[in-house]
Amino acid sequence: MNIKITGSGSYIPTETISNIDFAKHSFLNDDGTPFPYPNDVVAEKFLEITGIRERKYVSDDLCTSDIAFIAAKKAIEDAKIDPETLDYIILAHNFGDVKKGAIQSDILPSLATRVKHHLRIKNPKCVAYDILFGCPGWVEGVIQAYAFIKAGMAKKCLVIGAETLSRVVDMHDRDSMIYSDGAGATIVEATEEEGGILAHETATFTYDEAYYLFFGNSFNKDHDPDVRYIKMHGRKIYEFALSQVPKAMAACIEKSGVDISKVKKVLIHQANEKMDEAIIHRFFKQYKQTPPEGVMPMSIHKLGNSSVATVPTLFDLMIKGQLENQSLEKGDVILFASVGSGMNINAIVYQM
Amino acid sequence: MNIKITGSGSYIPTETISNIDFAKHSFLNDDGTPFPYPNDVVAEKFLEITGIRERKYVSDDLCTSDIAFIAAKKAIEDAKIDPETLDYIILAHNFGDVKKGAIQSDILPSLATRVKHHLRIKNPKCVAYDILFGCPGWVEGVIQAYAFIKAGMAKKCLVIGAETLSRVVDMHDRDSMIYSDGAGATIVEATEEEGGILAHETATFTYDEAYYLFFGNSFNKDHDPDVRYIKMHGRKIYEFALSQVPKAMAACIEKSGVDISKVKKVLIHQANEKMDEAIIHRFFKQYKQTPPEGVMPMSIHKLGNSSVATVPTLFDLMIKGQLENQSLEKGDVILFASVGSGMNINAIVYQM
Repeated sequence: MNIKITGSGSYIPTETISNIDFAKHSFLNDDGTPFPYPNDVVAEKFLEITGIRERKYVSDDLCTSDIAFIAAKKAIEDAKIDPETLDYIILAHNFGDVKKGAIQSDILPSLATRVKHHLRIKNPKCVAYDILFGCPGWVEGVIQAYAFIKAGMAKKCLVIGAETLSRVVDMHDRDSMIYSDGAGATIVEATEEEGGILAHETATFTYDEAYYLFFGNSFNKDHDPDVRYIKMHGRKIYEFALSQVPKAMAACIEKSGVDISKVKKVLIHQANEKMDEAIIHRFFKQYKQTPPEGVMPMSIHKLGNSSVATVPTLFDLMIKGQLENQSLEKGDVILFASVGSGMNINAIVYQM
Repeated sequence: MNIKITGSGSYIPTETISNIDFAKHSFLNDDGTPFPYPNDVVAEKFLEITGIRERKYVSDDLCTSDIAFIAAKKAIEDAKIDPETLDYIILAHNFGDVKKGAIQSDILPSLATRVKHHLRIKNPKCVAYDILFGCPGWVEGVIQAYAFIKAGMAKKCLVIGAETLSRVVDMHDRDSMIYSDGAGATIVEATEEEGGILAHETATFTYDEAYYLFFGNSFNKDHDPDVRYIKMHGRKIYEFALSQVPKAMAACIEKSGVDISKVKKVLIHQANEKMDEAIIHRFFKQYKQTPPEGVMPMSIHKLGNSSVATVPTLFDLMIKGQLENQSLEKGDVILFASVGSGMNINAIVYQM
């Protein structure tokens, strides 16, 4: 028995926010003092580091569970399965449903429950739950689906990553320019076909790293201290990711027994282009190689960092031929990898 | 190989809130009109139905992850394991960390990350994540730990249920009297000992039931509509639980192959005494029996309904001999069962 992704779907939100759209923001330092450069300089520098030209926000009427449902529906249709045959719905997110203009996360009931409700699935044996695991939540959801199938507890799982970071950004923080919204979903199934998940690897670093990403106050000190936003220690994350992610990716490759030369594509969390490039270089350096041209497809330029949604969305765009100069063919070995709040890192070696 | 609970711990919060303490509340109907009975009548009726005389709230300085940590530390000590040998930390909750006086849920980083950080565990291979699964979250966490062990992905897991419902109650809603705070934790291990998890069963009902428990507005219509609280359709939940929970419990017993006469104790989610009594009667009625005296230990009278924490806390109190006239002996077969938001139901047949 092998365990494969048999269908995928994604939702690209409709609102396009360009870097210029941040011109009206008054950016501050973390101590509340005005940032010393004009916004056009900020935007230029930002583009240079992150590669993000624009990002996607959901329209005001949508929440995370709504876009999770849209992506899920597409994945089910793509896999051509009867949704009533699903054993699990696993939904990864980090902030729940946050309505436009509200500040509370709504996570009761779980977002997986909402998706199952919208899918009109009646079968009570389809178990729906949410995981909170930072940006690597979708990859971890796939690993959990793998565990349930391996343990004989499931045959078909729907694994979704969905997030609306636009609802939790501090508009006075330049990091707000990174964040985006999106949803990606996949069907993970037991199958007699060749390939599938060859190996997986997960690590949680909390000793020093637990609060590298956190929920914190606005840089504008006049804001209510009880209202918090997504915040990060960017420099620390960068250094942490560079030192740990390539190692975890290599550990996963080693477990799989696949030679590095067979790895066609690395689908990495779209966090920041410079960081991802540094990671991929270090990863291949471990094998005394440089990354082959086009090995690391990127969607960040137009889609930004949509947390748990980046990897499944990238996969879906590639498999549907919607990412320029990128494709996935039957038999290709690919490496999924992610890093984020926790700090969590994970990877999957997967054969198409 | 068997899979057993090898240690447990719980945290009973320090603030005791009696029914009389609600006398100063102005209870309203859901349409905002004053509730037509005086508070002493409300309290009397409430006690009659729920069995709750008092409940526990955490002190103002504590959040859910803090009490999860305390319970976890006790469970680790009880199991006499090196925390660095843990493969997973699975934390079930429903609202994240909500600081006293604040209204936002803080779930970044995950609460499991916070617990691992507080435990000072360095091993990155100890994977920490949260699940959102309503009140049955701790039981489901145990089932997930079971899956990881079965799949060969883990040997030792820490499974925690922790909640501070006191931070999300609408003081104008009589249902606020039900909710309580607490944390329970267990170590779930692969072992060569006899017994352990004999069978498990989970069901998620979302077609009509998804929003029986939900995040909604205060009954006081003057409150900010963007501030929401835990809310329930009590009557619907009661009817749902009565029709579905006994069936799920019986399905689990059947899977285990254990005869009903061998079931020594049923550790059920402490939701409401009358409801739990009705469930246990219906459960035994399926075998043309009435429940044996003392088969369903209750902690609700003094501890209230602390969501995910009720079942592991009950287990911990019993195994430590801290629940009057109740004990657990080696070889005893017990049935864990829970029901809550999702709507989720689950059960585990377990041999001590």
